[in-house]
Amino acid sequence: MLVAAAPAAIMTALRSMVCAAMPSSKTVTAAVLLIGNEILSGRTQDANLNHIAKGLTEVGVKMAEARVVPDIEGEIVEAVNTLRAKYDYVFTTGGIGPTHDDITAGCIAKAFGVPLHCHPEAVKLLEAAYEPAKLNEARLKMAETPVGADLVKNAVSAAPGFRMENVYVMAGVPAIMRAMFDEVKHTLAGGPPVISRTVATGLPEGAIAEGLGAMQDAYPDIDIGSYPFFRQGGFGVHVVLRGSDAARLDRAVAAVIELLVGLGGDGIEDS
Amino acid sequence: MLVAAAPAAIMTALRSMVCAAMPSSKTVTAAVLLIGNEILSGRTQDANLNHIAKGLTEVGVKMAEARVVPDIEGEIVEAVNTLRAKYDYVFTTGGIGPTHDDITAGCIAKAFGVPLHCHPEAVKLLEAAYEPAKLNEARLKMAETPVGADLVKNAVSAAPGFRMENVYVMAGVPAIMRAMFDEVKHTLAGGPPVISRTVATGLPEGAIAEGLGAMQDAYPDIDIGSYPFFRQGGFGVHVVLRGSDAARLDRAVAAVIELLVGLGGDGIEDS
Repeated sequence: MLVAAAPAAIMTALRSMVCAAMPSSKTVTAAVLLIGNEILSGRTQDANLNHIAKGLTEVGVKMAEARVVPDIEGEIVEAVNTLRAKYDYVFTTGGIGPTHDDITAGCIAKAFGVPLHCHPEAVKLLEAAYEPAKLNEARLKMAETPVGADLVKNAVSAAPGFRMENVYVMAGVPAIMRAMFDEVKHTLAGGPPVISRTVATGLPEGAIAEGLGAMQDAYPDIDIGSYPFFRQGGFGVHVVLRGSDAARLDRAVAAVIELLVGLGGDGIEDS
Repeated sequence: MLVAAAPAAIMTALRSMVCAAMPSSKTVTAAVLLIGNEILSGRTQDANLNHIAKGLTEVGVKMAEARVVPDIEGEIVEAVNTLRAKYDYVFTTGGIGPTHDDITAGCIAKAFGVPLHCHPEAVKLLEAAYEPAKLNEARLKMAETPVGADLVKNAVSAAPGFRMENVYVMAGVPAIMRAMFDEVKHTLAGGPPVISRTVATGLPEGAIAEGLGAMQDAYPDIDIGSYPFFRQGGFGVHVVLRGSDAARLDRAVAAVIELLVGLGGDGIEDS
């Protein structure tokens, strides 16, 4: 009863404290949920996932999963509830505009079991951006958030995104999404930042696989990935080493280069 | 017991019959599972989802969901089992090379509860491509498939992908993935192909939202989406209409253009 009766401001403060109290040695995880038929139909090539992935890596948050779901309420609600329970943060993109296919705010409300309301601060933002005659019902829909949500403003569009507990709801248009994400990125409670180092070789994967497997066993704290690529004249491989201890990474990178040269190939760190 | 004792060839034939018997009036659905830490870390911008999405649309299969999971067995197995139960087809990309982080074949076997084996035909393909001295243990790993799988050959790499019931397992390298996908695309039992038409307007979303919502109500068999974009001088909107009845689409496109012009804007069909 006490919690249910607490004013929104206190609830917000409590949520902030929970976030701030996250131990920084623990891996902090996130999931991304891209909402929109246009990505699944192939009409649109998603440009948001990679931007969010890079930004999360910068602030020490590990993106652990991503999903793309269509504009269908049941699918969105189920995905939001699965992901917010499993990961520290969830970032959604898409479906917060004024048209009939923009159903994300309602789905988030449903996922949290709270009603939608017209967020007073969002209404003010829209009133400042549109003449009264142009602020129609469809545009006012962009001020609707679940009760208890905080706004995520942005420098590109008057219509804000919002945060509901650990779920950040952002636009799908890349320029607006980026402005929203960059607004919240540095407020996230991340773990130690992950450093990534890449060694390129002209040797084929099949020639280095055994040695690389042994290297992974010797450096269990470093995540060693092998990514073949085409380049002029044939295949090559990027060996990517990721970890948060710079000195250990130095040793592992040197060991990988020694392995590749020992196998008769080249091993050159990409700058 | 009869089924358990049936030879693989009979099981394969039975599976093919199940696929061929799919009624073409029903919506045929698919999911895509991108496997790989490199997409989640932001190191790699995925290029496969959009290619698969467009290809599925071409053959009348609706991509209903996509997921990106890391190179972690439990996550891959869970996603494969969820998606293959929910959709008609599943396409995975990534994790079928020779290195330690290539664990997809083993995960698919685990998901289906069958052992891995060295697929005799895949071994022959590798033997034809590599001198005996170079066909090492790591490369032979690329011939491993779950028992019961059929190969998906490709024109780019000797190492094949495979199909296990309704799950198609493909490479992550885009050139190889495309060769594999294009190999199987026309074998899929799709529904009626979906036609997509796009009308561009300089009107903002907020001005057309109400009319477009009414249009969606009037054409429930057409999926009408609204996608704002930036162009020189401001925002514009692409109204995308998708459906399988060409005559109904003609009518809906004409109605949308009439709506936009009636609202004082332009409405021009993109060719």
